Amino acid sequence: MPKLVMKFGGTSVADLERIRNVANKVKREVDRGYQVAVVVSAMAGETNKMVAWARELSPLHDAREYDTVVSSGEQVTSGLLAIALQHIGVQARSWLGWQIPIRTSGLHGSAAITEIDAKVLNERLAQGQVAVIAGFQGIGPDNRITTLGRGGSDTSAVAVAAALKAERCDIYTDVDGVYTTDPRITPKAQKLDKIAYEEMLEMASLGAKVLQTRSVELAMIHRVRVQVLSSFEDLPGTLVCDEDEIVEQQLVSGIAYSRDEAKITLVKVPDKPGVAAAIFGPLADGGINVDMIVQNVSEDGKFTDMTFTVGRAEFERAIHIIERNIGAIGYQKLLTDKNVAKVSVIGVGMRTHAGVAQTMFKTLAEKGINIQVISTSEIKISVLIAAELTDTAVRALHTAYGLDK
Amino acid sequence: MPKLVMKFGGTSVADLERIRNVANKVKREVDRGYQVAVVVSAMAGETNKMVAWARELSPLHDAREYDTVVSSGEQVTSGLLAIALQHIGVQARSWLGWQIPIRTSGLHGSAAITEIDAKVLNERLAQGQVAVIAGFQGIGPDNRITTLGRGGSDTSAVAVAAALKAERCDIYTDVDGVYTTDPRITPKAQKLDKIAYEEMLEMASLGAKVLQTRSVELAMIHRVRVQVLSSFEDLPGTLVCDEDEIVEQQLVSGIAYSRDEAKITLVKVPDKPGVAAAIFGPLADGGINVDMIVQNVSEDGKFTDMTFTVGRAEFERAIHIIERNIGAIGYQKLLTDKNVAKVSVIGVGMRTHAGVAQTMFKTLAEKGINIQVISTSEIKISVLIAAELTDTAVRALHTAYGLDK
Repeated sequence: MPKLVMKFGGTSVADLERIRNVANKVKREVDRGYQVAVVVSAMAGETNKMVAWARELSPLHDAREYDTVVSSGEQVTSGLLAIALQHIGVQARSWLGWQIPIRTSGLHGSAAITEIDAKVLNERLAQGQVAVIAGFQGIGPDNRITTLGRGGSDTSAVAVAAALKAERCDIYTDVDGVYTTDPRITPKAQKLDKIAYEEMLEMASLGAKVLQTRSVELAMIHRVRVQVLSSFEDLPGTLVCDEDEIVEQQLVSGIAYSRDEAKITLVKVPDKPGVAAAIFGPLADGGINVDMIVQNVSEDGKFTDMTFTVGRAEFERAIHIIERNIGAIGYQKLLTDKNVAKVSVIGVGMRTHAGVAQTMFKTLAEKGINIQVISTSEIKISVLIAAELTDTAVRALHTAYGLDK
Repeated sequence: MPKLVMKFGGTSVADLERIRNVANKVKREVDRGYQVAVVVSAMAGETNKMVAWARELSPLHDAREYDTVVSSGEQVTSGLLAIALQHIGVQARSWLGWQIPIRTSGLHGSAAITEIDAKVLNERLAQGQVAVIAGFQGIGPDNRITTLGRGGSDTSAVAVAAALKAERCDIYTDVDGVYTTDPRITPKAQKLDKIAYEEMLEMASLGAKVLQTRSVELAMIHRVRVQVLSSFEDLPGTLVCDEDEIVEQQLVSGIAYSRDEAKITLVKVPDKPGVAAAIFGPLADGGINVDMIVQNVSEDGKFTDMTFTVGRAEFERAIHIIERNIGAIGYQKLLTDKNVAKVSVIGVGMRTHAGVAQTMFKTLAEKGINIQVISTSEIKISVLIAAELTDTAVRALHTAYGLDK
């Protein structure tokens, strides 16, 4: 019998009525002939409440104890859903991370799954018992509960699907799929039937926060087919899959944007070997993630301007690190701009098609939008623009690439 | 270094401020030179909330899943207290039932502790680390979380104290000790400095609900010295200990009462062998606990009256069972009375002293209180009286046995 993993987030199990609703959805898949494993998050709000408690007791709390506390939320929902399933005649049993076990690294608070022993789960599934698995948690090398970081239940679900060799991993959430762009910006945004792993990865990391990035990486590595769909509507969602499975591949699949950017420019940096290392070494040591980097051509061969972006939350720290290293770097002036946004065009089709970038630049020029920084990858072109022009840019690009419905 | 077990109930860890207060109490004992293990309950109200959820989802829920859900409350407080202790500079680590492990029987919902492996705990204590243990829970033979029944954290604490060979087990609660009788009935009730295990057992099972009965039995078997004291005041409590440790043993230690009784009389039962079995066999099969039993002397050798008491919660079921078995029993009339109370005089001293019962009967007679049923054990005399005379009886007996302060 084919196996199916179903994952339900915090809003989908927020109260007993919704837990009953989830039980009915699970029963339907069982009745269709699937062997089902369900992965659940904590009831909405529970994890936040416990995180706040830990912080209030000690701002620098022990991550091991934090994990013990916050993992309890998923424990509660797994037991309650098992009870709700049994009540409607579906055999079910809850499973905590340590019971399966789901082994993880020892990095408490954001551990990585290293191994899932699917033996017992497979036996129970074969007996017709639904496995209700507490998401977000595992067990570390020290025999202590670990958690996978916020949104980690998505990763739990994909990892379980990989271990069980499931036909599909359905992620039920409060949106009904992945869109060509943010529907709040343009009502012409369309729900995608399918999206390639690589595209989803770019979408996820660029602020289309439907799935945790790590879960998409894991799905891509293990070729787990992931469907994103709504808990509250009865409609097919978006399938995240191998690009080979997408027959009518569009050149561009979506337009993503991020307003969490800040731009830093070092003016008149000496144009000599080692200067990039002098700038980005201390930033990396400080744990600051540098995104786009542009080095202007040096006019006189002596000085150059270096521009880069960092996340807005890390902006102040980045400035502090740069200023502390002025001696080693030797810049003349530091310019900053927090009023910027990154807009990206994403599509695996651009690997084999020229002209995608040109369309982007031309469209933005026609709208009078100035491009401040450009960066590209195999399947993505990103530009940095003034923040207030984000909506205009996204709408124009959505139309230009033929994504309007 | 001597070892100490400290147990804190739900009201003692009801919020973060109280958890901080508990941490300070633990630190004080550490500073005094004790190796400390702490056993905690769930925050007040949490367990009830989860029990209600399980019931609402399914009145006949799976006890395994119930245990998974409700055990989460102690998990949260153990982690939070460990964080609070570390915050004030006390090394601490939380321990869940399955981590120690605390092995139990497989009777989910009211499991019995079968074994505690104290090896790792002892190592950690020797390193100066406080062990914060989730009470109420263990792990069953099926590798699933079990719970010990309501109030089970007392039992956890005593079992841990026995396993660690602790000098004492301090049970912090919302009362400040064990009293000679209920202070709500007479302000002359005195706090006892010490009470023998056997006496405490009678007190606990008779409605002086300070400690779970099972925890007292366990303490008696393993000779664990248990102190009951207040979380909110800084005073010594009552030590539950071996009677040899009580130098000035009183004849009577306390007056207990219970209003949860109901009396059933079968009039004109045939006075022949096997009639008691015909009555009490079906009741036992129905899980009904019969307490006091009196069989009147048969006047004519043919018929007798049989009177007994059951818990008021089981009264209706008991009547139903008796009526169903009228053929086998053959009584002529069934009289019932729910308006009764049991008053008991308790003291290990009565083993070696005559006249204790006589004082009771005389005192009640002087107050015009009619005794309906009498039952006695080695260290206890109980009488059944009209419920409305309970307070009068308790006060008079308290004075008669010299317990007034």
